[in-house]
Amino acid sequence: MGKSQGSEGWVKIVSPDIIPPSLKDNTGDADRLGRSIERALHTDQVSIGLPLIRKLPSLLRENDYRVSVVVYKGSSSWHLMDIWPASPAHQIYGLAVDLGTTTLVTRLVDLSSGKILEETSFINPQTEIGLDILTRIHHAGQERGLAKLQKLVVERLNREVEDLTTRKGFDARAIVAASVAGNTTMTHLFLGLDPYWICREPYIPLVNKVPILEASDLGVKIHPDAPVFVFPNVGSYFGGDVIAGILASGMTRRADVSILVDIGTNAEIVLGNEDWLMACAGAAGPALEGGVASIGMTAGPGAIDKVTRDPSTGEFQVRTIDHKPPVGICGSGLIDLVAQLYLAGMIDMRGKYIPERCGNLLREIEGMMCYVLVPAEKSATGRDLALSQPDIDALLRSKAAMYTILTTVTRMANVSMRDFKDFIVAGTFGSYIDPQSAITIGMVPDLPPETYKPLGNTSVTGASMALLSEKARDEIYEIRNKVTYVELNVNQEFMNLFSAARFIPHTDRSLFPSVRPNG
Amino acid sequence: MGKSQGSEGWVKIVSPDIIPPSLKDNTGDADRLGRSIERALHTDQVSIGLPLIRKLPSLLRENDYRVSVVVYKGSSSWHLMDIWPASPAHQIYGLAVDLGTTTLVTRLVDLSSGKILEETSFINPQTEIGLDILTRIHHAGQERGLAKLQKLVVERLNREVEDLTTRKGFDARAIVAASVAGNTTMTHLFLGLDPYWICREPYIPLVNKVPILEASDLGVKIHPDAPVFVFPNVGSYFGGDVIAGILASGMTRRADVSILVDIGTNAEIVLGNEDWLMACAGAAGPALEGGVASIGMTAGPGAIDKVTRDPSTGEFQVRTIDHKPPVGICGSGLIDLVAQLYLAGMIDMRGKYIPERCGNLLREIEGMMCYVLVPAEKSATGRDLALSQPDIDALLRSKAAMYTILTTVTRMANVSMRDFKDFIVAGTFGSYIDPQSAITIGMVPDLPPETYKPLGNTSVTGASMALLSEKARDEIYEIRNKVTYVELNVNQEFMNLFSAARFIPHTDRSLFPSVRPNG
Repeated sequence: MGKSQGSEGWVKIVSPDIIPPSLKDNTGDADRLGRSIERALHTDQVSIGLPLIRKLPSLLRENDYRVSVVVYKGSSSWHLMDIWPASPAHQIYGLAVDLGTTTLVTRLVDLSSGKILEETSFINPQTEIGLDILTRIHHAGQERGLAKLQKLVVERLNREVEDLTTRKGFDARAIVAASVAGNTTMTHLFLGLDPYWICREPYIPLVNKVPILEASDLGVKIHPDAPVFVFPNVGSYFGGDVIAGILASGMTRRADVSILVDIGTNAEIVLGNEDWLMACAGAAGPALEGGVASIGMTAGPGAIDKVTRDPSTGEFQVRTIDHKPPVGICGSGLIDLVAQLYLAGMIDMRGKYIPERCGNLLREIEGMMCYVLVPAEKSATGRDLALSQPDIDALLRSKAAMYTILTTVTRMANVSMRDFKDFIVAGTFGSYIDPQSAITIGMVPDLPPETYKPLGNTSVTGASMALLSEKARDEIYEIRNKVTYVELNVNQEFMNLFSAARFIPHTDRSLFPSVRPNG
Repeated sequence: MGKSQGSEGWVKIVSPDIIPPSLKDNTGDADRLGRSIERALHTDQVSIGLPLIRKLPSLLRENDYRVSVVVYKGSSSWHLMDIWPASPAHQIYGLAVDLGTTTLVTRLVDLSSGKILEETSFINPQTEIGLDILTRIHHAGQERGLAKLQKLVVERLNREVEDLTTRKGFDARAIVAASVAGNTTMTHLFLGLDPYWICREPYIPLVNKVPILEASDLGVKIHPDAPVFVFPNVGSYFGGDVIAGILASGMTRRADVSILVDIGTNAEIVLGNEDWLMACAGAAGPALEGGVASIGMTAGPGAIDKVTRDPSTGEFQVRTIDHKPPVGICGSGLIDLVAQLYLAGMIDMRGKYIPERCGNLLREIEGMMCYVLVPAEKSATGRDLALSQPDIDALLRSKAAMYTILTTVTRMANVSMRDFKDFIVAGTFGSYIDPQSAITIGMVPDLPPETYKPLGNTSVTGASMALLSEKARDEIYEIRNKVTYVELNVNQEFMNLFSAARFIPHTDRSLFPSVRPNG
């Protein structure tokens, strides 16, 4: 029996023991090779495609029947992907891709050891067509629009692969598997599937469960026969990226109920445990990502991502990304800042500035009350970085939306927010948020801070897991089938909850016992 | 649940009941269609390829979700092949092909009713490269030789399909499946596989079990996604055509031991029942097919295919194919003639003419004793059609080879030839042979004539069966796995048996009690 690496994996390199043909055993080359792989893998079905069968006689004889083969398991049986001269030195890699609307993240995974060798992220070039999903769906409907959108993302990915393999010094054919997790529209565009019906009643995707494809079907320039695993989606508004997140969170392997929240413009929320899963999505508003405030910006060099206040001096300290001079403030900084303003009694429950508590840094600029966080001489822009009253109002609407969605979905599931042992925060953005600040402004429930578990980009983590284990791949389909997606009904009750949640932290202070302003 | 035709079949047209999408059921188009087909077929896995998924939204909506789909079962799960507007009028066809070295035979099969609509046969254009297999294997090794051989047969087949569909008035896309049975070399050439090692020690084929392919993989111009089932082979000298014959004979579904014999230049013999199968092949010699005798010819218009003798007048009567004036004599006529000459006492046990019993029709021509069967004035050639002493000798060597092979293989299997309830004669040529004549000359065992069952071209019959039933397809692999192929060892014992079998009917007359010459 030959050696095979990584018993968990569904993409493997195997060096089967092939008994060369003789007059006593004149089994055909393909059958002989197939059986030796079957023995090595302890399986009963390995299929070999015609193009590879055609090359077998020379491949096997030139190597004296000593070869290493790359195989992958499709939906049911194993497939032979390539044949190389036998060597223990062969390395095989997988490429995990988080297909974000704005940013793509890739991870290069060593399929034998399971190690992550490198992670890169880059702007999705489809943003040149339109920043938001709807613009892209519209563009896909125009002549050659769909083809262009697909080409943009695939070619960009290919450039990344080329850079990556050049840097690492191996051939792109050594990447023998890929997994791709994205939202439903991004997945459609990547596959060249028309997303037209995603945004039209009754809002259906073209496909939920995507068959395992081969790289050459999609124009992805890794090994042409490499399997490409595309995460399934649950519906138009619940994509493979969230399923990857659920997988990465491990919430479906626990008896306790966890909640997984991807905080952003569109918040995706999943609630459940090993027995059930409930999910919903809702618009929380761009304010959370810092995209709306006059000094707001998305996380990047020079963005203020953390704000603290020295209680003795009353001064605010800011931290910027990469320690660059401050350019603006991103979502996590904004949440910190509003929390600190509230705790210092500088804004009231409604988020309104209390001038007598703010000192001379509160100024009227263009008719709006603004608090100067960084004076012009210390900012990178040469202008004051100031938080206006409308900025606070926008943030409070967003946090209220988030809290209302959380309240609604937990009520629907008949669980209490207080019972969560794990509040998993998915997404790169979420990782920056200080849970205590988010609790203070009443955006998330008042749980012990250690309950909050930022997992970073769970989409690419889930995609990496899918590359390494057949069990993970099966689990993905189980998760998909288990999820109950609920539409948030924005009715009178929702609006009442929303109104109450617009206060800091909430009209019902008993919900946030730990929040005690000094004001 | 939708309607599906032919529950036995593995290629079907189904009109699934698809519930159109709604806000309450926003399953994706592909998943929706897949599930409705799964319900109609009572299965749990239907796969749809990316190119078809891409076309789904318009296909489904233009037809208001009322479609007929063509599906086929691969090695494990069902695949969607095409989608048409729903209609009970759609017809789907299969093409069964016997890939003979000399002649190709095709059958057009109605996949819904199972009816055979038409059978055609035509010369294999590879004969222009060489009549025999070895020449073609050699040619395949030359530059572009393999590609040329494949192209010749595939293009000829495509021309036949074009003629056939034009004549029948339907599109070639309505042919949604094909099955191909041929000997191992012909199968390799058809698939574009190098047959180099078939004729070189240790004589191994490139492949035994061929995966199910799609027509476009092979350039066959029926529906491009139509599955092509290629019969597996047991080894270099035991091909899919014989497996098709075994399937067609039904011998593996009976408890009694049967023997299947394909009589020709190369005789293939299979022995067995529902429990075991033993096979061998051996050279019987071209004399059996009429290819050697000076007046010999292969079966065709004007060939004498039957010879009788009026015992009262002693005159020979001949029958020719298509009732044309006689041109020559084919194998079955030759066997009849020699049997009648022996029964009339005109030749002795050694096959030598007894001049005193032959009258004035026995003449010396070019130094050889010849018996004039048809005088010049009655023949189409204007010359006497006469059987020479060497012609008889050649036939007796061939019949001796056949009988010796039969003796050897039955001894190896430890069965008695007398026990056969069925002696199945495969091949078009075999159908013309009068069993009583063959017994008389001692070519086949002395069994009651009704034991002999000529089945005609069992290869194309088996190929047709494979198109119509999944059970048949499974049975083919079972047969392949069950067959024990034995090499005939031409040792001293074989030569002794051969010498004894060169007599008419045999040196051991007790083996042929029914043969009583009048001489």
